[in-house]
Amino acid sequence: MTDTEPALVALDWGTSGQRAWLLGTGGRVLDGRRSKRGLLAVTEGIDPGDPAARAAAYETAFRQACGDWLTAHPGLPAIACGMVGSAQGWTDTGYRAVPSTLDFTGLVPVPHRDGVLHLVPGLRIPSGDRPGDVLRGEETQLAGMLDVLTGPCTVVLPGTHTKWVRVEGDTVTGFATSMSGELHGLLTKHGIFARTAAEPVRDDAAFERGLAAGRRSRGLAAELFGARPLVLDGALAPASLPDYLSGVLLADEVAHQLSTSDTERVVLCGTADLCRRYAAALADRGVAAVVLTEETTVRGLWRIATAAGLVHHTPERTPQP
Amino acid sequence: MTDTEPALVALDWGTSGQRAWLLGTGGRVLDGRRSKRGLLAVTEGIDPGDPAARAAAYETAFRQACGDWLTAHPGLPAIACGMVGSAQGWTDTGYRAVPSTLDFTGLVPVPHRDGVLHLVPGLRIPSGDRPGDVLRGEETQLAGMLDVLTGPCTVVLPGTHTKWVRVEGDTVTGFATSMSGELHGLLTKHGIFARTAAEPVRDDAAFERGLAAGRRSRGLAAELFGARPLVLDGALAPASLPDYLSGVLLADEVAHQLSTSDTERVVLCGTADLCRRYAAALADRGVAAVVLTEETTVRGLWRIATAAGLVHHTPERTPQP
Repeated sequence: MTDTEPALVALDWGTSGQRAWLLGTGGRVLDGRRSKRGLLAVTEGIDPGDPAARAAAYETAFRQACGDWLTAHPGLPAIACGMVGSAQGWTDTGYRAVPSTLDFTGLVPVPHRDGVLHLVPGLRIPSGDRPGDVLRGEETQLAGMLDVLTGPCTVVLPGTHTKWVRVEGDTVTGFATSMSGELHGLLTKHGIFARTAAEPVRDDAAFERGLAAGRRSRGLAAELFGARPLVLDGALAPASLPDYLSGVLLADEVAHQLSTSDTERVVLCGTADLCRRYAAALADRGVAAVVLTEETTVRGLWRIATAAGLVHHTPERTPQP
Repeated sequence: MTDTEPALVALDWGTSGQRAWLLGTGGRVLDGRRSKRGLLAVTEGIDPGDPAARAAAYETAFRQACGDWLTAHPGLPAIACGMVGSAQGWTDTGYRAVPSTLDFTGLVPVPHRDGVLHLVPGLRIPSGDRPGDVLRGEETQLAGMLDVLTGPCTVVLPGTHTKWVRVEGDTVTGFATSMSGELHGLLTKHGIFARTAAEPVRDDAAFERGLAAGRRSRGLAAELFGARPLVLDGALAPASLPDYLSGVLLADEVAHQLSTSDTERVVLCGTADLCRRYAAALADRGVAAVVLTEETTVRGLWRIATAAGLVHHTPERTPQP
């Protein structure tokens, strides 16, 4: 058996998009695809009260993504993480309660025409004494980072809904979600700042000024509005508004999340642009984060599939995504 | 001269709407109208780089609002406050720097076919050592409240962009703007919570729970997201989301604004619904606010027109808006 022999079909199937990989023995990526067939596109026009119609739509999208791989290699196991396992997904996998190990074994099988797709459940903190929270997809990204996480640490996964995850060994002990990314999108696309017509340009100085403003204690809703008088005074170019607002949001987020974190070690994992911003906001509070900008979800899918017995572990090889 | 004799045309001309009143001697409202001819509607389709075209559009809208009053009573003075005096308005009045008395005399005249419309300038804190800020229209609302403001106080004017104004005697000494209202609109109209399809219903308990969540120190962007796991857990009805988010936003706003205020006396002036919410958020912090839900802008327009000599003061009469 060589590592170019197909061993697993793996999908990261989120809200707005979908990525599919054909992995060889040992986790090597043999082929990869990306499409916009996320939850929103798949369920468009489908009656939310008709699970059968929704399942059919997901199966069609699944075959579009990787039907040729399954036909060429009958019996190939398949795994998927992300919103495909949500209440609006193919099947609702539910959540595993925190604390939870990242080496999952409880995958949720979804039968389809050519076999079974195994879905990775999300993680959940039940609402109660402490605030509840949920994540889905990030558990797999985290599983793909386990080899590089040492000791207790806080992993920051920046995005529309940034996750601040507390990891000890191979276990998630807690997490919190901050929707700064969504707020930034809403403010720059739909609000009063969206009316300030100007093509955004990158302005690191504006971002730094936003960080400084966000450090003040006038409250997020006041500091965000503070961009407006700056523009009216000619002290901030309209094209620099997005970077300024990003600074205000991240300074506020980082200040609050660090204050509730009891670890000194912070690991950032995400796109280069978001990691740069969060690293600057963390540095502003005296925290030097370890930054990983590599893809870890495919590695996590391989690891979870291995732990669940879908593929055979080959200990002599390190996964090579 | 009786108080049914027309003495002034007064307009509150904002971003999304316009109100016009015909006032008699002493400030009595003889007639009133309301239209959607605000800045957005008036300037729609007008080239922003063509001030003459914009002025013509404003003059047309002005005549639609009160041309009959001006024709019936030639020479009647006219005054307007609000965004009509902004950079996208009829004429940019600029701003008066804070500290500033609320008994204005420096109105900005705009000639039109039948006379002159006098515009009330806004107030501005220049960006510098302390954060800059602007307001426009609220200065007139404040002028209309002067008779009931005693001693130093903080006046809260709730809205899309809530103003927290520090008033001493007849002078505004400082203010801050919080865009909680805009954030609430963006979150419930365009964001992830907007996808939770449910007709909103009033839920005071959900608002109170939002207040309690907003009091915690996890940061606004995290506490707002906290509504999502509550809905997923079945602990919050989707129809109650708007009230819950309102509570989270107002608790955060009030906590921060009170901490930077050095007055104990807080006066709230706005719509009954917003005053009720802010009063609850303030009570939650131990502050009993004085609440005014009456219309004060028309009273302010009369007061400013009197101070500016547009109309003759009749000291024996209290304005009766």
